[in-house]
Amino acid sequence: MNFKEIIQEVYQKIENIDDKGKLTSYLPELADVDPNKFGVHISTINDCNFGLGNCNDKFSIQSISKVLSLCLAYSILGEDIWERVGVEPSGTGFNSLVQLEASNGMPRNPFMNAGAIVISDILISNLENPKEDFIEFVRSISNNSEINYSDKIASSEKIVGFRNVALCNFIKSFGNIQNDPSDVLDFYFDLCSIEMNCKELSELFLFLANNGRKVIDNKPILTKSQSKRINALMQTCGFYDESGEFAFKVGLPGKSGVGGGIIAIHPNQYTIAVWSPGLNKKGNSYRGMKFLEEFTTKSQLSIF
Amino acid sequence: MNFKEIIQEVYQKIENIDDKGKLTSYLPELADVDPNKFGVHISTINDCNFGLGNCNDKFSIQSISKVLSLCLAYSILGEDIWERVGVEPSGTGFNSLVQLEASNGMPRNPFMNAGAIVISDILISNLENPKEDFIEFVRSISNNSEINYSDKIASSEKIVGFRNVALCNFIKSFGNIQNDPSDVLDFYFDLCSIEMNCKELSELFLFLANNGRKVIDNKPILTKSQSKRINALMQTCGFYDESGEFAFKVGLPGKSGVGGGIIAIHPNQYTIAVWSPGLNKKGNSYRGMKFLEEFTTKSQLSIF
Amino acid sequence: MNFKEIIQEVYQKIENIDDKGKLTSYLPELADVDPNKFGVHISTINDCNFGLGNCNDKFSIQSISKVLSLCLAYSILGEDIWERVGVEPSGTGFNSLVQLEASNGMPRNPFMNAGAIVISDILISNLENPKEDFIEFVRSISNNSEINYSDKIASSEKIVGFRNVALCNFIKSFGNIQNDPSDVLDFYFDLCSIEMNCKELSELFLFLANNGRKVIDNKPILTKSQSKRINALMQTCGFYDESGEFAFKVGLPGKSGVGGGIIAIHPNQYTIAVWSPGLNKKGNSYRGMKFLEEFTTKSQLSIF
Amino acid sequence: MNFKEIIQEVYQKIENIDDKGKLTSYLPELADVDPNKFGVHISTINDCNFGLGNCNDKFSIQSISKVLSLCLAYSILGEDIWERVGVEPSGTGFNSLVQLEASNGMPRNPFMNAGAIVISDILISNLENPKEDFIEFVRSISNNSEINYSDKIASSEKIVGFRNVALCNFIKSFGNIQNDPSDVLDFYFDLCSIEMNCKELSELFLFLANNGRKVIDNKPILTKSQSKRINALMQTCGFYDESGEFAFKVGLPGKSGVGGGIIAIHPNQYTIAVWSPGLNKKGNSYRGMKFLEEFTTKSQLSIF
Repeated sequence: MNFKEIIQEVYQKIENIDDKGKLTSYLPELADVDPNKFGVHISTINDCNFGLGNCNDKFSIQSISKVLSLCLAYSILGEDIWERVGVEPSGTGFNSLVQLEASNGMPRNPFMNAGAIVISDILISNLENPKEDFIEFVRSISNNSEINYSDKIASSEKIVGFRNVALCNFIKSFGNIQNDPSDVLDFYFDLCSIEMNCKELSELFLFLANNGRKVIDNKPILTKSQSKRINALMQTCGFYDESGEFAFKVGLPGKSGVGGGIIAIHPNQYTIAVWSPGLNKKGNSYRGMKFLEEFTTKSQLSIF
Repeated sequence: MNFKEIIQEVYQKIENIDDKGKLTSYLPELADVDPNKFGVHISTINDCNFGLGNCNDKFSIQSISKVLSLCLAYSILGEDIWERVGVEPSGTGFNSLVQLEASNGMPRNPFMNAGAIVISDILISNLENPKEDFIEFVRSISNNSEINYSDKIASSEKIVGFRNVALCNFIKSFGNIQNDPSDVLDFYFDLCSIEMNCKELSELFLFLANNGRKVIDNKPILTKSQSKRINALMQTCGFYDESGEFAFKVGLPGKSGVGGGIIAIHPNQYTIAVWSPGLNKKGNSYRGMKFLEEFTTKSQLSIF
Repeated sequence: MNFKEIIQEVYQKIENIDDKGKLTSYLPELADVDPNKFGVHISTINDCNFGLGNCNDKFSIQSISKVLSLCLAYSILGEDIWERVGVEPSGTGFNSLVQLEASNGMPRNPFMNAGAIVISDILISNLENPKEDFIEFVRSISNNSEINYSDKIASSEKIVGFRNVALCNFIKSFGNIQNDPSDVLDFYFDLCSIEMNCKELSELFLFLANNGRKVIDNKPILTKSQSKRINALMQTCGFYDESGEFAFKVGLPGKSGVGGGIIAIHPNQYTIAVWSPGLNKKGNSYRGMKFLEEFTTKSQLSIF
Repeated sequence: MNFKEIIQEVYQKIENIDDKGKLTSYLPELADVDPNKFGVHISTINDCNFGLGNCNDKFSIQSISKVLSLCLAYSILGEDIWERVGVEPSGTGFNSLVQLEASNGMPRNPFMNAGAIVISDILISNLENPKEDFIEFVRSISNNSEINYSDKIASSEKIVGFRNVALCNFIKSFGNIQNDPSDVLDFYFDLCSIEMNCKELSELFLFLANNGRKVIDNKPILTKSQSKRINALMQTCGFYDESGEFAFKVGLPGKSGVGGGIIAIHPNQYTIAVWSPGLNKKGNSYRGMKFLEEFTTKSQLSIF
């Protein structure tokens, strides 16, 4: 079977299981999404593309954008960023303050909220127009000038994001935030508000399956070593407190978002994006996790 | 450059760096090892083998044996073992009791001491003569009838292993140990006392680079899926609180032991064993970690 | 109203409320006690005594004996014991291992299980025949040669006390236990098995209301300063994670046991013992707590 | 010896010991205080007053004001406030976020920063002009219209108080703050900025030694029961992670502040205020703690 056939078979199977996932409730915009949406799209480095279901519907990529902000910061500062944030899985919920207290304000990895806030702070210190420059970076990787922030979602986050305000000020109290906390948080909330569809998402991440280079023109976004390291980080830390399970069952580096999206990467082969808004208890897309598990089992391809 | 040349070059480089590692002090037998020992051995699935330095000197593999006991338990019970132990990285030191309290006695993964003790309990319940049957399992995988326990090290562990006695009784208090704690611990201390050299170690683990089958006769030890899952677990949990860093810098699944040994696996390609007894602050071989980082950088091969 | 009248009134009131307490289930001997038992006894330093209900029925005093073992250790070693155990409330459940990890094996106070185990270790190191000498100490304070251990309860504890075995070995791993853990635990389980009735209990503790001296013959058990300090410790740490609430609502130093007994002390005035086996969620006697709250409210006497 | 003689003797002794305390460094105004300042003042309910040293110098009472805001909230709302904040000692540092996470935003007691912030929120919801009404309350208890906030210190706190901003937003994320976090924090920082001298401080707190009534005119500030409960809370929670030690060594309810002030209360007898700006490792006045320990030892008076 080729990818297309496998995706069709697995999509049909997962579409028919009971979706035990629940929509997140913390933002009205995310709580109102149609829970039946289900899209998937694969992009290979040798230019095969195939999508199914709601693969052209835009959704809020949320934490998936943490990979993109990390890539931009890494490409600017190189290994120096690891003096501000660690590379170890967290072992607790995704926005816990406990470990920050033990580590004097150094987040364990850049995919926890705490770590992504520190990366936002780094970008603010190093970009002239952070908000514009960042979306420009994303658009340039994807050759897609239509990708954009959702001001509505960003505003909504600002109203209810007390826990992130707490996180940012807590880190600031340890000296690991250099800019004004409210500026850092505004930028952070913007980052999380980016909207894309599965097709755009799988195309955008393809450079991480291609050793850091854009497939279309071979332009380097990251060095080969940096690209491998970002993949390693996604493997160990990409799914909050379910990262071990994702490595165990799916066997690919990836990153999820609370909007129900997941991106997974098979180095040197392909990227695959799935979207289904119902979340399991660990905060990852219920059907997305099931789909990817079944997909790598059927395709007999995992990095392990 | 081929593997042999890369290994020679990297070995020479690492041999000349300042070894900042310190011997473990908790067992007299491990504290007395010559700190200058340094061996490495690679075994490929297409039958290339190459060793350097003290690659024929036996050492105590310690926690590396946790992978072997897990494989045996997994092959006997299948997925049922995950009701007794999790698959998530721990995020704290390797023998912490904190998380056990939060999880009601379910260890987060089988490579923490707590998890390996539960696996020992499972084996005792499922093997007729646990100590004999286990070493027979190890010998049969490696076609090497000389691999054996060190009674001296096992006895030494029993005298000072108060923390493991605490762990085992703590888990028992939650009901996740079925046998008598002192029987479980005796078996656990035996497992950790196995001695091997780098050559034996790399040959032994080759089945995990070969989808669960012995290379020599294609005999299945684990299913393909199980083999991939063991590798995924080593990737996310194999190096205590340095697992993220190992994935980040080396990019291969692996497992370390407090005796200074490390085994790393490149699925479908090779296994490589390194031994140097000085440990870094996280409890992993100082020169072993450096060697493997340099080796995968030079060989431009990692799973990411 | 005098004490007798107040006790009668409050006893009647509490006897008629719905007892929401539950018997502890961890020992068959404690689980089988008649849940309707309810006794109270007061002893004043000017020799007034009054009891009501099942005040002459013996029960297992359990953790209340931790005060007695502390008094004996304190009288032998003086202030040196505070190098082995702290004087701060714990802020978590009564047998948590978490804080021991943070404090390198120094229990926060002598009334947590961990602390009482360290005190047991101190006594073993300083008494010729620990078990005999200790019960002799208790009998001499109370002029009552009938007070004794319950071998049945002690044996029962030894069968199920895995968590205490864990605690003791964990502390030993930090070097804060000097004797063999199984000897320490045997003695500890003996201490907890002492049986008394409310009358005996209130008479026994009267020296702590009398600045450390036995009322009957003015013989010093502790110095005045030591006696005050034991009372202060009971005030801040005597009721596990409900110590603050007891100070807040009852306003007297005291100590509870999982057998449903409570002793409270009004310095320079009286001691009062209550027994009702049903426990609230924090592990303290449901009716005992209610009785004492009502009693100090009615008598308008608290130390605050 | 009477109080005056004891105070004179103890003052002289403590004045001559090596002050191992260190000034707090987090606010410039507190870091610049003369470290040699040392004042003490006692006020008894039968109108004896005596002061020594710098007992007429104003200092920043800081956390001592948490008792006053609690008293005002308690007098307005009664027992309902305990649905928003607990009465148990915390067992960790004074501004830890860890326990808030475990308790879903309910601070363990009103003297931790978290608890005092919740009390500030309660006062804002219940006072017409919180800042004016509160200082009016303090002035009315003390019959001293000169007591006031220090705008300079309050402003300084607002610039560096990232950890308190984190705390307040964290609690808000659990729903236990009703008003805008920045309003709550402004008021909280005002409360902590009140300045007084030892004489004013001991006179102000005298109502808590007098069952809740002002001594001068017998006017009730709190009910007798409420007054006893405030004292009990100070006993178990008044000195951060040194509360047990203060009960143990001093044996009186009390409260300290990071400005180096301590107030202690002997119910039905007296209040005593000490001020010396050097702090010990737990954040309490080094000489203040020593003075009070010696004072209650010499006077042979403690509540235990």
